[in-house]
Amino acid sequence: MRIGILTGGGDCPGLNAVIRAVVRSGTTQHGDEVVGFRDGWRGVVDGDTVPLDVAATRGLLPRGGTVLGTSRTNPFALDGGPERVLETCRRLGIDALVPVGGEDTLGVAHRLAGAGLRCVGVPKTIDNDLDATDYTFGFDTAVGVASEAIDRLHTTGDSHHRALVVEVMGRHAGWIALHAGMSGGATVVLVPERPFDLDAVVAHCQHRFDSGFSPIVVVSEGAVPADGHLTTATGQRDAFGHERLGGIGEALARVIEQRTGRESRAVVLGHVQRGGTPTPFDRVLATRFGLAAVRAVHSGASDVMVALRGTDIVQVPLAEAIAQLKLVPLERYEEAEVFFG
Amino acid sequence: MRIGILTGGGDCPGLNAVIRAVVRSGTTQHGDEVVGFRDGWRGVVDGDTVPLDVAATRGLLPRGGTVLGTSRTNPFALDGGPERVLETCRRLGIDALVPVGGEDTLGVAHRLAGAGLRCVGVPKTIDNDLDATDYTFGFDTAVGVASEAIDRLHTTGDSHHRALVVEVMGRHAGWIALHAGMSGGATVVLVPERPFDLDAVVAHCQHRFDSGFSPIVVVSEGAVPADGHLTTATGQRDAFGHERLGGIGEALARVIEQRTGRESRAVVLGHVQRGGTPTPFDRVLATRFGLAAVRAVHSGASDVMVALRGTDIVQVPLAEAIAQLKLVPLERYEEAEVFFG
Amino acid sequence: MRIGILTGGGDCPGLNAVIRAVVRSGTTQHGDEVVGFRDGWRGVVDGDTVPLDVAATRGLLPRGGTVLGTSRTNPFALDGGPERVLETCRRLGIDALVPVGGEDTLGVAHRLAGAGLRCVGVPKTIDNDLDATDYTFGFDTAVGVASEAIDRLHTTGDSHHRALVVEVMGRHAGWIALHAGMSGGATVVLVPERPFDLDAVVAHCQHRFDSGFSPIVVVSEGAVPADGHLTTATGQRDAFGHERLGGIGEALARVIEQRTGRESRAVVLGHVQRGGTPTPFDRVLATRFGLAAVRAVHSGASDVMVALRGTDIVQVPLAEAIAQLKLVPLERYEEAEVFFG
Amino acid sequence: MRIGILTGGGDCPGLNAVIRAVVRSGTTQHGDEVVGFRDGWRGVVDGDTVPLDVAATRGLLPRGGTVLGTSRTNPFALDGGPERVLETCRRLGIDALVPVGGEDTLGVAHRLAGAGLRCVGVPKTIDNDLDATDYTFGFDTAVGVASEAIDRLHTTGDSHHRALVVEVMGRHAGWIALHAGMSGGATVVLVPERPFDLDAVVAHCQHRFDSGFSPIVVVSEGAVPADGHLTTATGQRDAFGHERLGGIGEALARVIEQRTGRESRAVVLGHVQRGGTPTPFDRVLATRFGLAAVRAVHSGASDVMVALRGTDIVQVPLAEAIAQLKLVPLERYEEAEVFFG
Repeated sequence: MRIGILTGGGDCPGLNAVIRAVVRSGTTQHGDEVVGFRDGWRGVVDGDTVPLDVAATRGLLPRGGTVLGTSRTNPFALDGGPERVLETCRRLGIDALVPVGGEDTLGVAHRLAGAGLRCVGVPKTIDNDLDATDYTFGFDTAVGVASEAIDRLHTTGDSHHRALVVEVMGRHAGWIALHAGMSGGATVVLVPERPFDLDAVVAHCQHRFDSGFSPIVVVSEGAVPADGHLTTATGQRDAFGHERLGGIGEALARVIEQRTGRESRAVVLGHVQRGGTPTPFDRVLATRFGLAAVRAVHSGASDVMVALRGTDIVQVPLAEAIAQLKLVPLERYEEAEVFFG
Repeated sequence: MRIGILTGGGDCPGLNAVIRAVVRSGTTQHGDEVVGFRDGWRGVVDGDTVPLDVAATRGLLPRGGTVLGTSRTNPFALDGGPERVLETCRRLGIDALVPVGGEDTLGVAHRLAGAGLRCVGVPKTIDNDLDATDYTFGFDTAVGVASEAIDRLHTTGDSHHRALVVEVMGRHAGWIALHAGMSGGATVVLVPERPFDLDAVVAHCQHRFDSGFSPIVVVSEGAVPADGHLTTATGQRDAFGHERLGGIGEALARVIEQRTGRESRAVVLGHVQRGGTPTPFDRVLATRFGLAAVRAVHSGASDVMVALRGTDIVQVPLAEAIAQLKLVPLERYEEAEVFFG
Repeated sequence: MRIGILTGGGDCPGLNAVIRAVVRSGTTQHGDEVVGFRDGWRGVVDGDTVPLDVAATRGLLPRGGTVLGTSRTNPFALDGGPERVLETCRRLGIDALVPVGGEDTLGVAHRLAGAGLRCVGVPKTIDNDLDATDYTFGFDTAVGVASEAIDRLHTTGDSHHRALVVEVMGRHAGWIALHAGMSGGATVVLVPERPFDLDAVVAHCQHRFDSGFSPIVVVSEGAVPADGHLTTATGQRDAFGHERLGGIGEALARVIEQRTGRESRAVVLGHVQRGGTPTPFDRVLATRFGLAAVRAVHSGASDVMVALRGTDIVQVPLAEAIAQLKLVPLERYEEAEVFFG
Repeated sequence: MRIGILTGGGDCPGLNAVIRAVVRSGTTQHGDEVVGFRDGWRGVVDGDTVPLDVAATRGLLPRGGTVLGTSRTNPFALDGGPERVLETCRRLGIDALVPVGGEDTLGVAHRLAGAGLRCVGVPKTIDNDLDATDYTFGFDTAVGVASEAIDRLHTTGDSHHRALVVEVMGRHAGWIALHAGMSGGATVVLVPERPFDLDAVVAHCQHRFDSGFSPIVVVSEGAVPADGHLTTATGQRDAFGHERLGGIGEALARVIEQRTGRESRAVVLGHVQRGGTPTPFDRVLATRFGLAAVRAVHSGASDVMVALRGTDIVQVPLAEAIAQLKLVPLERYEEAEVFFG
């Protein structure tokens, strides 16, 4: 068979491990040919390909990012986009596509599968907010980076008797904040799923100061106050005329400083959370996803996604995977709350 | 309530996180008192305790090992041992015990629960070979240490054109070898569950050399050759008159060197695999196990173990947990085999 | 003898290692008593002390921050401050002070030494900008954190074809940027000592994009453009009415994006650079500084600072150490320039 | 000019950084052509080359090992070896050679320089035992690996109340043991330069046990007891008929166990100490060495080695560099001794 593979959306440690596994399994176990498309769906629309054989994947396993490049191109937003995708696949003799991506990338795959293109998706979201799979690769690495930063911040916070607010990724789901906060011994963890009470946050910080230690607040970039009174609007415009918004981390640090009377600082971890070598957990998961995708293709499946359930890799309908975001449930948040203050 | 906690068997990164979670949840959520027993069942037999409050657990989360100490003492192997355990608990007013340990420690708990002592076990085995739970804490950390070592060995192996054999923990189950080998891009992975064919191992190494790279063989300490012909007996006695056996890693390196004609070296990772700060995965898992154990105690459960199933923490009968070892299944091993050679 | 020790200014990985070495050497080699002052000079002014013996320093070596706490209190800025310092030392029978700090802390020590108090300083600046010593501890750790971040950013930058600007510490001296940039393979490194040409920065980024890779710009927080045209003023005021200035990193990312037409993002590493466990280099250096300070005290020296010269620890006059900042010399910057573009 | 470069002896993190710097500086600053020789002097003898341009060195900076490969071939031990080296250089138009290596590799360079071949050496020894330079790259990385292992072993040792002996590299010089031991808080450090008193080692371990903690002994592979009574001879022969010697680590653990009555275990770190990504310190040092070598070549120098003195890179005669090993001086060892016990 000829299998096409592409990586879309934000990059994630483990993408290269998926590519390597698909190529290795496809070529050595099944005699497949594997074709890589550059920069997500953009490469399929444009027919921009790179040949992939075992030699091309040597050394990829521990490498972050994606050698195929990525983009947020959506063929359905382009004039004649879906037709060009189908045309590319026909012209190149692609028997099946393995799109590796999040909600958007897999949503495209689902619609193309409906149009007759065989698609087996591989889930990818650093935020871990994709439903129908226990975990996605990249998440463990991001939590590792954030957790190590929190470990480091404890000692400087305590030495200076100052509060530190760590803003981590997570626009809609607070998984990174929850796991990094639990792992790092945060004083408070704030997630988008649970609008927060600013008074309670300040009280937890004050309690921590009173016990002789310094508070660390871990906050998802998408967290918001319950009463909406914490504005991050700055009224400022940048060189391009766009309004500049300070992040939630900065805003929180300002308020904590004002109300506890202690110096407070924000650290915004940003892109380091998604770069670099994947953890072993993510390398193994990404590798198993890649192997399972090839198995699924050869079993004749389409319109499905490979997914982790417990310790097994299973197939789930793409429709189920993209139906809704996987949010932090109440009981998981309450586990973290035991350690607040 | 008064809850006793002890840690038995080999130490594991994450034990301190369990202790911290039990103390924090017990004392702040339920008004419990928590008593620590020193050195596993030995401390319960002897009534050797250490008081545990929130202050005593500060800073424990990221720390490896166990502040309670550990031992392999089995009360049932001691004259009057079980009676002394029951007597200690009666005397100290212990309402429930939370033993944290592997097959042996939990086996004792199961028998004591049968004798009327309320026991809620927490699974702990760095080898990940305890049944009835998806994972145990410490395993991810051990895989991390082994995987980082393999990453390092690739460059020195390739520079010197020599084979490297990495011996990792795992007497009966090959989980660490399997995950570290998949994560590290091993040329071959050998596990106790699958007696290996020495000719095939050598052939894989030769194939790797032929492709211009150097092989890395990852082998569980308990792996054995299918034909039994690879002896590690040395015929040597040490200063104390004990017979000295070389490990399987050394034996393999000797044979690979002899049969490929290339220098081969063994690295035995040993105790570094079980020491040091736990990974975030292990910290979160250990913390959740601790919280769940307190919940179980207060729900009136006994003779159970907390366990991970998917992303949930559940309760399983202790009898089920200790009935048999969790071995690497064939299909998981076959996934790794795709990358051999 | 009775030796007082204090840590002042910004915290630094290695401070605890100095404290441990002073206590260990003082008490076990010389029969000294060691008294710790809390929060830098503030503790000496207020007579706020903590007793330090070998037991109190167990476990300190690998720990970041300072168990003594720190502050920026300057006794000479307080009414009667110097008198209170001398009075505290007289009252407590302090024979010598070991202040661990940077320019400010050591400047105070120099003036107090002039007033008759025996002072042996230990140099500490994460920025490595203290003259008269080859290196200060904490710097290697900060470079390590920054370098690892750059390693991670390479893969995400390349995957997204975007420029990344990493802002690191260094208000007056560019040592962290220089070393982290050389270590991380930066496309451009910008330091305060060399006002930069914005056109050249953009040209280097463009050249890097043209070669198929993504640029990483490493910039000291104190770097400035040669023509002064890159404003970081935002015209915005925060909740407390203070004018908000965006950092140089953000400003650069905006301009690079505008002029190359490629997405550009800034990452501000901030406080993680100064927290956490010290590298072995810093642990050894801090330990040797602590030992040398005790030797200096017992040799009768005063108004001196211990310093690293080559592989030796020597004594230099405090006056020399604080006379001027150690800046990045031209020839060191030119070494980095070889790799620009 | 045409510059040849080769890497000889044991591999070391930082070799690739030297290669990259030589290529980058030579080609872009001076218009040189750079030719790589495979596997040390073997490649020069055989004329086995690989072309090196900027594209070939992309991504090399953070990579351990050497892309050129290495060997211990000594042309002066081969019939007609030196003549073949000179003939290769003549035939390929090599104007200067940059051999990167230790005592042996540089000794060959010195003799060839005497025969009229322009040679500028770059020092490389993971053991840091090369004279005339403050440090060699690779050493800091090796210390980092060993120090991290010691950090990990503390927690498992304390949990099990057992002694741990860590055997590190260093046949003739104890630098790795000294620095890793100081950095890791070892109970005892044993180096080849100071034959040790077994009674004192046991006493230090006993003292550490008595204080409630577990001892960690860090020992160079080349350390020996003062009275010669600690034999590592095993009387055993391996499959190839070679006599097998146990390491000093194993032997020490046996004796400590016997004489303290506490379990003791040895960990032999082995090849992981020389593999993997270099630390920032080593990347910067290796890069600066590479740049300085090109400068030296273009300044007309020969029979010299680049070397680190303080923060400067200088040139020293090759003869001086190879005259004797750089051993741990007494005063450095005494610094470590302060912390024994």
